[in-house]
Amino acid sequence: MASAHARLDALRAHMAELGLDGYVVPRNDAFLGEYIAPSAERLAWLTGFTGSAGTAIVLADRAALFTDGRYMLQIAEETDGALWEHWHLHEHPPGRWLDALDRAGLRIGYDPMLLSAARLETLTGTWGCPVPVAGNLVDGIWTDRPAPPTGPAVAQPEAWTGRSADAKRVALAETLRRDGQDAVILADPSSICWLFNLRGTDLAHTPVLLAYALVRADATATLFVDPARIAPAVRSGLGPQVDVVEAARMQEMLAALSGQQVRVDPERTPLWFTQTLEQHGARPVRAPDPCLLPRACKTQAERDGMRTAHRLDGAALCRFLRWVETEGIGRTELEVADQLLALRMQSSECVMASFEAISATGPNAALMHYHPKAATAARLQAGQLYLIDSGGQYPGGTTDVTRTVWLGDAVPPVYLREQFTRVLQGHIQLAEAVFPDGTSGHRLDSLARLALWRSGLDFDHGAGHGLGSFLSVHEWPLAFTSRPSAEPVHAGMVLTNEPGYYEPGSHGIRLENAMEVVPASVGARNRPFLRFEPLTLVPFQRRMILPALLDDAERRWIDSYHSLIQTRLSPMLDTGMTAWLEAACCPLAVV
Amino acid sequence: MASAHARLDALRAHMAELGLDGYVVPRNDAFLGEYIAPSAERLAWLTGFTGSAGTAIVLADRAALFTDGRYMLQIAEETDGALWEHWHLHEHPPGRWLDALDRAGLRIGYDPMLLSAARLETLTGTWGCPVPVAGNLVDGIWTDRPAPPTGPAVAQPEAWTGRSADAKRVALAETLRRDGQDAVILADPSSICWLFNLRGTDLAHTPVLLAYALVRADATATLFVDPARIAPAVRSGLGPQVDVVEAARMQEMLAALSGQQVRVDPERTPLWFTQTLEQHGARPVRAPDPCLLPRACKTQAERDGMRTAHRLDGAALCRFLRWVETEGIGRTELEVADQLLALRMQSSECVMASFEAISATGPNAALMHYHPKAATAARLQAGQLYLIDSGGQYPGGTTDVTRTVWLGDAVPPVYLREQFTRVLQGHIQLAEAVFPDGTSGHRLDSLARLALWRSGLDFDHGAGHGLGSFLSVHEWPLAFTSRPSAEPVHAGMVLTNEPGYYEPGSHGIRLENAMEVVPASVGARNRPFLRFEPLTLVPFQRRMILPALLDDAERRWIDSYHSLIQTRLSPMLDTGMTAWLEAACCPLAVV
Repeated sequence: MASAHARLDALRAHMAELGLDGYVVPRNDAFLGEYIAPSAERLAWLTGFTGSAGTAIVLADRAALFTDGRYMLQIAEETDGALWEHWHLHEHPPGRWLDALDRAGLRIGYDPMLLSAARLETLTGTWGCPVPVAGNLVDGIWTDRPAPPTGPAVAQPEAWTGRSADAKRVALAETLRRDGQDAVILADPSSICWLFNLRGTDLAHTPVLLAYALVRADATATLFVDPARIAPAVRSGLGPQVDVVEAARMQEMLAALSGQQVRVDPERTPLWFTQTLEQHGARPVRAPDPCLLPRACKTQAERDGMRTAHRLDGAALCRFLRWVETEGIGRTELEVADQLLALRMQSSECVMASFEAISATGPNAALMHYHPKAATAARLQAGQLYLIDSGGQYPGGTTDVTRTVWLGDAVPPVYLREQFTRVLQGHIQLAEAVFPDGTSGHRLDSLARLALWRSGLDFDHGAGHGLGSFLSVHEWPLAFTSRPSAEPVHAGMVLTNEPGYYEPGSHGIRLENAMEVVPASVGARNRPFLRFEPLTLVPFQRRMILPALLDDAERRWIDSYHSLIQTRLSPMLDTGMTAWLEAACCPLAVV
Repeated sequence: MASAHARLDALRAHMAELGLDGYVVPRNDAFLGEYIAPSAERLAWLTGFTGSAGTAIVLADRAALFTDGRYMLQIAEETDGALWEHWHLHEHPPGRWLDALDRAGLRIGYDPMLLSAARLETLTGTWGCPVPVAGNLVDGIWTDRPAPPTGPAVAQPEAWTGRSADAKRVALAETLRRDGQDAVILADPSSICWLFNLRGTDLAHTPVLLAYALVRADATATLFVDPARIAPAVRSGLGPQVDVVEAARMQEMLAALSGQQVRVDPERTPLWFTQTLEQHGARPVRAPDPCLLPRACKTQAERDGMRTAHRLDGAALCRFLRWVETEGIGRTELEVADQLLALRMQSSECVMASFEAISATGPNAALMHYHPKAATAARLQAGQLYLIDSGGQYPGGTTDVTRTVWLGDAVPPVYLREQFTRVLQGHIQLAEAVFPDGTSGHRLDSLARLALWRSGLDFDHGAGHGLGSFLSVHEWPLAFTSRPSAEPVHAGMVLTNEPGYYEPGSHGIRLENAMEVVPASVGARNRPFLRFEPLTLVPFQRRMILPALLDDAERRWIDSYHSLIQTRLSPMLDTGMTAWLEAACCPLAVV
């Protein structure tokens, strides 16, 4: 395989042939996704960088790689600093980098299937002149590129979704008519799978089918995916109002929308769609993907499924934590993560991991999104903190949980216990919040930081994110984000709560539960208030908590959460595990 | 004077002459200000509406008036519903209203001196076609329009500003060179007064000179204002690098910028400037007014001046609160506000009120921006809450303080004490925050609400705003805003902290202090943390506090704040007042 240098040279040669001064290589795929198939790992192939967020801009004489705070250390490790400049995506975004070069009118090529309208605006700055280029330049030089996924679509039964695909599509068509739109383009596979009650095997950890869809205001729809992937039983489940059509025919189908108002989510739809609609005289209307909100507000069946999934998952995690205490020391981070997956898979319900586990001991846990590699995975040691962030896919729901535990018999140092307790206080403050319906996740994010801030500590990621129902473990846009956002929280939504603290070169702490949003008892009928209920059922390691730092309400929260875990999980556990759980969930006042 | 009907007819006739289908009349003046001179009260003259935010759009057969939630009741009271449709500015903005008429290509005239680029975008919708019209159409029919202000400019001594105008201009020029800009247009009188160390008497409560300025990257500047208003001593203080030129010559001066990059704040500059620059081949660059950040980060002299102003102001407020207790009942809200102003003006330092006081008793206090009028002002009654939101202009600083007090000898009802205490807890939670340098005010806004939310209560305004140094009492963009914003908080800034709770038809509670942002003792050198120190020195009414709802930290905060007030104010007060203050500031544990 060619060296990083040779790859960059090949891309530059290709750029020169096309008369381009630059070319953009984003990390996402043509569904603008965070989780992508190996065939879409263009950025990793070109640069060596394997993180889940990043963009490269290649010019003839310079090349820059941009990522966010989670991955700044990782790009330095994985990519050649002589070939690639390293920049913080938010502090020094591509547009600013290009502008700072002070070269007017740079022709920057991009693949219109890989960029949304919203992304393009941040990329090219004042001086860059963006040039859409059909066909991806990287694909042209990536000779051993893996084949795209071709597995079959699977029907997600209504028993789990709580709502028929017909009913969802009729409601969506109503939304379109209300907003005066003739049709909508859907490009987010999670939205499409949610809408059609479908799932798939196209990604390693997210059970989606990678497809596009066009839904019309008369409730008919076209699903763009290879019809061979839709078995007859699945096809007939879609009903007569849904066509299944090759993606190759999208241009022709879009041309038929001439003169119509077509809703397009500028953040979640490749630019190719808008450009093609405009070429054929349709009128694209910028508005959010209309599936986002109904998808995020889970049905009763979905909420029940989530609870079931989290009970199974909690039992697996408890077994794992007990195992780590006694058996984990001396094993590699990868072996330990494998053991957790094996324990999860002991439940026949668990389909797969919901993401590649972050199994990180000692200083590795300070890399917020560390994934152990076989060659370099560290071994768990007594006298260290070990962080495990993992999740499972169950047909009823998706889980995501992080615990941090002290290993070995020695007493953990007080400064670590203090930091752990501050993180836990942040977790509790968010978990205990009561707030008006519709409050943005951004406004709640700071609650998870107050206790840390008071000690001069903080963490460089959002305090949590939406969670799919047997879909993506990151279900955007709902999130406790640290960046300004007005995305509202409503009843029935499911979010993680995951404050942390990271000391580079030393250790990392993160404590993450999934929570369901439920109505609070306060508030007026015309102004409902909401609160959270924990879904995750895994104790926080008691020996790491410094009770003296807690106030009464915080102590009560921990004790009652631990008591809830015991009530829910004990019936599922054998005697040995029940004894472990009893000790792990013992009230804080008991020394 | 012509009737509202006749005025509207006259405007429509004028529109027809110019071939316009519509005309926009915003409430702001040509400096895009919140506080405006009588000569700029075009919206009030045309419609009768006297609120501080609104926009009218007049078509040949319809006319609509838009305002925000604060003023929806008021527009219904003040304007003729037969002439004017009433709409919520955010829920049904002008663009949507125009689009809903479904008349394509409407030519909507506007005065390019009264709209920013950012505002215009929200006004005309998809269908409206905006047409800039030189000269204001309302001025053409407003026969008895008051003369614009012509008072002299006043130099603000460096002893108060802590920094020479030369030094500020040199630093500004450096910013322009760093950003690759040749010049900047300044249109915010607060920025201009701050930059040139000038003040004026053009507005009733804000000591600004209404002027525009052009500052070049070589640190030379042109101030656009009638030179007759700048006395020789003030003129020579500006130095040889500053020209003073009639506003009538702006077009000619802007034409000289042909080919140059000129920074223009799209939110704070009338469109006329951008349009004129473009006509003459200059390149406008959209970027925030470069004075905003240095203006908000007060110098040591400004912070000292703020403290002095707040000591004088606190003494006046304490005298007032004692007077209200004994003398206020039975007087009108207006008489009581006048008494407060008289007590403020007893200090020779106080120049004027910093805004028209909100003096509101009983249900009037539920109208968040109520101002008593002579004809309708209510009388203070025993057994009611009374809310007073007011401030003073002192040469060292501007004050803004709100207290809510229970009147009369009866014991206040527990439900009111509970609400008052929740508001106070919100105030304390924000006042006690420790947070990383650069955290947005929006992220801190929710802290002032947590205690209210927990009881199902909330308030429909931001938790606070920036405060000028002998400038505007609302110094934007710094604010604890409830709408998404990334505006950062830094050391040296001054903000108000003003949570509230309002029960329509019954009562209103608001507790407002000004606070200075100071470094916190926690945090690392490369990641400084900040906290607040109260500037306002006025006790919270003890009888309204329910100590049982408070935790230890909250009780300690109140006692130590009250003790600080005593320490700072007692030396300035006579024996009678000292005794009152001692009782008012007595620790909560003392019953």
